Amino acid sequence: MIRPEPMRGVYAPILTAVHEDGAPDLPRWIDHAHWLLANGCHGLAPFGTTSEATSFSMDERMQLLEALVRAGLPARQMIVGVGCNAVPDSARLTAHAVELGAGGVLMLPPFYYKDVTDEGLFRSVAEVIERVADDRLRVYLYHIPPIAQVGYSLDLIERLVSMYPQTVIGLKDSSGNEQTLDSILTRFFGFGTFAGSERLLLKALRGGGSGTITAMANIIPGAIRALYDNWQRPEADAMQAELNTLRNALSGFAVIPALKRVVADLRQDPEWVHVRPPLVALNHEQTEALRSRLPALSLA
Amino acid sequence: MIRPEPMRGVYAPILTAVHEDGAPDLPRWIDHAHWLLANGCHGLAPFGTTSEATSFSMDERMQLLEALVRAGLPARQMIVGVGCNAVPDSARLTAHAVELGAGGVLMLPPFYYKDVTDEGLFRSVAEVIERVADDRLRVYLYHIPPIAQVGYSLDLIERLVSMYPQTVIGLKDSSGNEQTLDSILTRFFGFGTFAGSERLLLKALRGGGSGTITAMANIIPGAIRALYDNWQRPEADAMQAELNTLRNALSGFAVIPALKRVVADLRQDPEWVHVRPPLVALNHEQTEALRSRLPALSLA
Repeated sequence: MIRPEPMRGVYAPILTAVHEDGAPDLPRWIDHAHWLLANGCHGLAPFGTTSEATSFSMDERMQLLEALVRAGLPARQMIVGVGCNAVPDSARLTAHAVELGAGGVLMLPPFYYKDVTDEGLFRSVAEVIERVADDRLRVYLYHIPPIAQVGYSLDLIERLVSMYPQTVIGLKDSSGNEQTLDSILTRFFGFGTFAGSERLLLKALRGGGSGTITAMANIIPGAIRALYDNWQRPEADAMQAELNTLRNALSGFAVIPALKRVVADLRQDPEWVHVRPPLVALNHEQTEALRSRLPALSLA
Repeated sequence: MIRPEPMRGVYAPILTAVHEDGAPDLPRWIDHAHWLLANGCHGLAPFGTTSEATSFSMDERMQLLEALVRAGLPARQMIVGVGCNAVPDSARLTAHAVELGAGGVLMLPPFYYKDVTDEGLFRSVAEVIERVADDRLRVYLYHIPPIAQVGYSLDLIERLVSMYPQTVIGLKDSSGNEQTLDSILTRFFGFGTFAGSERLLLKALRGGGSGTITAMANIIPGAIRALYDNWQRPEADAMQAELNTLRNALSGFAVIPALKRVVADLRQDPEWVHVRPPLVALNHEQTEALRSRLPALSLA
């Protein structure tokens, strides 16, 4: 059998707009989704870490995704976050995403228990795949040990790919570790490896990776797309350096509240700042500090 | 207003029996619940860490709890685990437990995002309490940084108690850190502080704490209860030392699979060994190693 071609490009783990009381704000969310696709993103990764995925209930996640598809956003250009702590939850979200036509799903490992074994994580992912039992399913493993603490080892990735070669076709590496990304790119050539940050986009593309799924795509999709489109040209290194400068401008701030603040300023729409607990919106002082760095950002 | 009296005693975070395919095994679960109450436990803490709570869906958790109550287990002697990553989920489980008459709920903080602020965690808990809006609600904070990574600081505990003195009336300290337990007992005298391990039961009781909610209560409820009942007697230190020896016999094994293995052996019922992924049952070698230490356990 021929292995399915992994998705490629720049994907935004789209910020989830909420009202002050935390209720999903569908119109703002859908507008943002359209804006992202119109301004450089190849697709969306709804319910990534940047989307505050874990702060929404199963029903909310499914309703939000349905609203996005109903609004005309192309499901085949989506990699939908579906990994939960409970296998039945992950299976339910995965089946739902596949039914809606999602191009792929992004699978966090169960992350409550620490010191779990590769065998246990293998069974978690395998059981989701077996329960969904749909040959349209395309799984991208979500490796983000700085937050989830639990991650996918190289051996575990290999075992999953060997067992489900038509299904497990990619990975988002948010380890933040260049050596880890190198190891994955080398060992799994042809795999759909996405850098978890645009900071490693050029490295990922040079190593045969798929692109990036990155928080920053929410505010500078055009600049990231430009590097993606020009990675083989001489100016690519300078473009990567420029992207790194933009990212550094946000360092020291809580990423998700900072990104929502930037979107609020870009759109001149203060309603965008709201987050769900346990996150907290930037306060006045933080907002001013962030804005003082904003002139450095050539946004979008 | 008079502050509600916290619950006291020995509580078992009851192991959740499942079939080989992971489906809940209600008869075995209910039998175990009855056995625990008949053999020393003052009450149950369904859906603690030891219960594999996070490996079950919301619906499964609610159905299991209903089955327990329907089977005649007294809800007022239960402290039900309800803390999820999403506030709507925590609020739903909390309201459900209160409706069933639960004596208390055990509240994990949201644990996906790391490096969150006390302000964000305060809002998480506060929003659950405000949404449930039921004066029967009694919250025990669940502090377990070794697993959840995210925990309750002393200042956060104080803020929650000050804001909700009729509601936030206790805490389970599973930090495993004696100094942390000391600090909590000293600063929050009269609070319903449960040691998260029977290893610190005597210390907790001497410091005015409520007792213990401990995994080991699943297999040696009688021995733990004996210490609880005799903590002011001269033999208490020797009893504590004996409990510590029993716990040490299990060290080096994955706790939950090991406890299920012990229950399987005690009941001569191999069906008890099943766990849900990401946990894995002990293999043959591990089982034999565990059994070789079992003669040291004077169980129940």
